[in-house]
Amino acid sequence: MTHTVISSATKEVVIGFDRPFVMIGERINPTGRKLLAEEMKRGDFSRVEADALAQVAAGAHMLDINAGIPLADEPALLARAIQLVQGITDVPLSIDSSIVEALEAGLAVYKGKPLVNSVTGEDEQMERVLPLVAKYGAAVVAISNDETGISTDPDVRFAVAQKIVRRASDYGIPASDIVVDPLVMPIGAMGTAGRQVFALLRRLVTELKVNTTCGASNVSFGLPARNNITGTFLAMAISNGMTSAIMNPLHPEVKATVMAADVLAGNDQDCMAWIRANRDPDAAGGAREGRIGGGRRNRGAQ
Amino acid sequence: MTHTVISSATKEVVIGFDRPFVMIGERINPTGRKLLAEEMKRGDFSRVEADALAQVAAGAHMLDINAGIPLADEPALLARAIQLVQGITDVPLSIDSSIVEALEAGLAVYKGKPLVNSVTGEDEQMERVLPLVAKYGAAVVAISNDETGISTDPDVRFAVAQKIVRRASDYGIPASDIVVDPLVMPIGAMGTAGRQVFALLRRLVTELKVNTTCGASNVSFGLPARNNITGTFLAMAISNGMTSAIMNPLHPEVKATVMAADVLAGNDQDCMAWIRANRDPDAAGGAREGRIGGGRRNRGAQ
Repeated sequence: MTHTVISSATKEVVIGFDRPFVMIGERINPTGRKLLAEEMKRGDFSRVEADALAQVAAGAHMLDINAGIPLADEPALLARAIQLVQGITDVPLSIDSSIVEALEAGLAVYKGKPLVNSVTGEDEQMERVLPLVAKYGAAVVAISNDETGISTDPDVRFAVAQKIVRRASDYGIPASDIVVDPLVMPIGAMGTAGRQVFALLRRLVTELKVNTTCGASNVSFGLPARNNITGTFLAMAISNGMTSAIMNPLHPEVKATVMAADVLAGNDQDCMAWIRANRDPDAAGGAREGRIGGGRRNRGAQ
Repeated sequence: MTHTVISSATKEVVIGFDRPFVMIGERINPTGRKLLAEEMKRGDFSRVEADALAQVAAGAHMLDINAGIPLADEPALLARAIQLVQGITDVPLSIDSSIVEALEAGLAVYKGKPLVNSVTGEDEQMERVLPLVAKYGAAVVAISNDETGISTDPDVRFAVAQKIVRRASDYGIPASDIVVDPLVMPIGAMGTAGRQVFALLRRLVTELKVNTTCGASNVSFGLPARNNITGTFLAMAISNGMTSAIMNPLHPEVKATVMAADVLAGNDQDCMAWIRANRDPDAAGGAREGRIGGGRRNRGAQ
């Protein structure tokens, strides 16, 4: 069994086929969040802190931290966000940037073993990011595209993932520290997007034997009742071997479906997490109506 | 692509890997429904008719009809129920009994090509049921257990399914008219039940190339928030190749998950069924809160 261990100063998370699915909170990301972007840019991180606490309360095992704001000092903002979040929560973090200098600034201040998000199969990117991952003893998300773009052929994407795993090995990074992102397209734009990803996941799990992740919300872009599509996608992905995702744990229907998938994959020992999350007698049948998901949970009433 | 065609006098349903998942309404079954059993026994079929209409309104593509009531004349009751239901709906039916005489009575009055539910891998059962299936040109559910019981080994269950397919062939029944039930155990009692079924489904789809079905509700027996477990199970099963299930379409969260799985499996052309079911603007994100599922749907308000 491949285990990818990520840690903070005091807490370890293990991503693996025989473990509960790892939910990585997606909210701390200014892309498409104008208010958050403006606040971060002027040094106000109160919303970052609130988002961190809310996601952890909702059950996030890890948090993704992104500070990609146009015309801002991204390395400084990312390092600051990481320090603040590590000061108020103990969950391990994913350091998310497409700018290598920002990844390095984040790695320099991070306490523990983070997940670097991400490296692609582009030669120049691999040559810059992989040495950093090796230097800091981190794990890394490997995105299965390269100079030629994102192929719609799962075999081509598999080959790119394989190339990154081999190149990482040259830098002394073991395959167990690589978490492959098979790239999930919006199903509303491409009806075969689901089948492609499921087929690719099978190969990544059985042949490369690596852990996997994705940005889950993307799959439902443009569709009504998005959270149902995203949650159902995650259940199907889990059934094909996906072991983590960058997602929103504050959506109760998404979280409930992931927890149910853990039960059905045999990774929720004696269904204890499921039973605990639904132990309120009037919650039977109602997990998707808000009883799971920290946002609407009312512990005080019990 | 294997297509199993089931029909009423005027309507055809096709079960297949490239088709939307076929929902077979489970409600017309007196097992565990004391009131329904008493009514049917004394010749009152009003609840049978109401259940038929409600399930079809909720989107059932087919209905399962069971009249298994202790100390009752099951063949006569089953035939009567089939005739009444065929008089008020046009969906094809599954004729459900463990008593061969009841199956024959149902087949004798049925208009169209029904699904016979079921035959096991027991020699005596196959020798009695398969000739009936051949005589009436029906399709049949093949349950993957035999004289030795239900094996927990997916390979043994696969071998039983294979045996039934071969034996059916001796009677001139093609594999496309056999819908294998891999047998779903309650996940709360056996944590490996999901993994076992998913592995078995893969083999049934890739090696035997048959369509599959199951009694879906069984998987969540004894657990809280049952419908979420059942719906998530179906999504994972669809992802592993399951093409139909005997289930309750009146549970909105189960139906919504099946419809989302159709989208993600690429079997909902241009997501049209999904978009249609969620077109009410305030339904975005709310399919599991009641907007899908005929029971709570309010067409009149649109």
